[in-house]
Amino acid sequence: MARKLLSANEYIDGVLSEDRFILGKAITLIESEKAEDQLLANEVLEALIPKTGKSMRIGITGVPGVGKSTFIESFGNYIIEQGRKLAVLAVDPSSQSSHGSILGDKTRMESLATNDSAFIRPSPAKNVLGGAAAKTKEVIHLCEAAGFNTIFVETVGVGQSEIAVKQLVDHFLLLMLSGAGDELQGIKKGIMEMADSIIINKVDGDNVKHGQMAKARYINALQLFPAPESNWIPKVELYSSVDNTGREEIWEMLNSFFEHIKDNGFFKANRINQNVHWFHQTVRDTLLSRFYSNNDLHKDLIKMEAEVKNGNLTPLNAANKILYETTKK
Amino acid sequence: MARKLLSANEYIDGVLSEDRFILGKAITLIESEKAEDQLLANEVLEALIPKTGKSMRIGITGVPGVGKSTFIESFGNYIIEQGRKLAVLAVDPSSQSSHGSILGDKTRMESLATNDSAFIRPSPAKNVLGGAAAKTKEVIHLCEAAGFNTIFVETVGVGQSEIAVKQLVDHFLLLMLSGAGDELQGIKKGIMEMADSIIINKVDGDNVKHGQMAKARYINALQLFPAPESNWIPKVELYSSVDNTGREEIWEMLNSFFEHIKDNGFFKANRINQNVHWFHQTVRDTLLSRFYSNNDLHKDLIKMEAEVKNGNLTPLNAANKILYETTKK
Repeated sequence: MARKLLSANEYIDGVLSEDRFILGKAITLIESEKAEDQLLANEVLEALIPKTGKSMRIGITGVPGVGKSTFIESFGNYIIEQGRKLAVLAVDPSSQSSHGSILGDKTRMESLATNDSAFIRPSPAKNVLGGAAAKTKEVIHLCEAAGFNTIFVETVGVGQSEIAVKQLVDHFLLLMLSGAGDELQGIKKGIMEMADSIIINKVDGDNVKHGQMAKARYINALQLFPAPESNWIPKVELYSSVDNTGREEIWEMLNSFFEHIKDNGFFKANRINQNVHWFHQTVRDTLLSRFYSNNDLHKDLIKMEAEVKNGNLTPLNAANKILYETTKK
Repeated sequence: MARKLLSANEYIDGVLSEDRFILGKAITLIESEKAEDQLLANEVLEALIPKTGKSMRIGITGVPGVGKSTFIESFGNYIIEQGRKLAVLAVDPSSQSSHGSILGDKTRMESLATNDSAFIRPSPAKNVLGGAAAKTKEVIHLCEAAGFNTIFVETVGVGQSEIAVKQLVDHFLLLMLSGAGDELQGIKKGIMEMADSIIINKVDGDNVKHGQMAKARYINALQLFPAPESNWIPKVELYSSVDNTGREEIWEMLNSFFEHIKDNGFFKANRINQNVHWFHQTVRDTLLSRFYSNNDLHKDLIKMEAEVKNGNLTPLNAANKILYETTKK
């Protein structure tokens, strides 16, 4: 076995002393699917709990091409200059098959990757039934215990993962471009309504006028949206990593946001709700993944799915065949 | 046992001969949780499949007070005059505890309830882990086999059920009021972006001007939304059941919608995807509900949830205790 296991205390002391090598190993431990690793992970997590929860957790999403990596690198460096310690985590559903986009992003955040006040962690390579996002919750805890007081959770705005990320963070930031045309095509429905802020990116050169017009349009549109539980009215800001504009405004907006939700109690209530959500989600996902593997249902599921697709069986028909016939074999 | 079980053939013949008494009994059979009922339900569903799938399936949502029942009664009677046969089904998460809103709605749709071309079915009284919406899928099939070519699935726009209903229907219609203020508070985030049409209701008397302004605002806002997979640009219409205005426009809009999605292939592709979704959802929900009851995990779940809520354990901590400790007992 290549990996050398540390003791619980070595993990705990290493994380608390802000040793990023041990932090990385602790994250790998949390992400492991092995029962013995999970028992060890439990010991580590329980010991670290008092040191967690103090960070700003910010989700950052947007379709490919919107400039997420550049924004995170540029804005990330700015807030580090303001004295923050930043951890950047990724939840990437596509990593399951490609393993590609992660490395790409890390090399595109070169100056952050070599900054002592930043920690970049790609998304877990292997997803178990939505488990990746659940584990990200605990990775956030580990980073907080290791002294990071700002967490960015990056996601690609085209899949299921944004709904998961909304449950991981305090503030959900959506990156957009100034045109309202083609670049919107890929983004998933419902994401815009979940955003606490819309940042119009690449507002420089010929785009400045378009950016200002887009800002006015979004502000109008956002007024029609239902008020969120946080009672925070989503803000629209402009950004350029070329001209270095928008950094102060966004940082100020984020600070106002956290002040607002701490004052009205949403910060605490939301985090408790999120924890309860992930607890049940993790139990459900793990039970299902055990059941599917234990009962070798995989082939039957594929067969029945085909029957549903070609219209020979209704969904309930097919489900009943699995539930009341196949599982009795 | 009070309920007399019919044979599969009695159910099948009864539904196909458009006997609404048998249709009601067949729905009760489908909704049953008993294994023997599900095997019988399977036989009935398989036989009826060739007669299903031909209807317009329309989801109707909006917060309490927006006038859903009145809209459904008034617009429903209008489309029946145009020669349609209408089934109105409800997916009501609140019915689990209250049992109240269903009866209320039925009595508020008095003229539909007594119309031979309409069939009104309240939501199932007992929900099993989201199972109500899954069964509604099959209830739609039964209604179609019984000759109903238009299905309204009504839901309260404040809960989780809209995401489920979106997976049940071809067209998702959102009822709103003309003000952009307080009446929006209750609606769940993300629903507006899922809508294929927004109908501004109660546009009569002093509200006409407000309604027209609201329409212009919504049309502007909808342009900023990402294009849906159906490539249908959501429409905004005004309605009044007092002045009988908007009926022709909405009916024409719905017909254009179905023409559009049949032409571009979305109608068929979407229904296949929905069926696959419900197949897996039903398997998952039933497996979980069996697991929870078989292993008497309920008490442990409540105990661990409390530990998560008061911050003694992280979500993964608590889940691991259930998954790797409690379940081994």
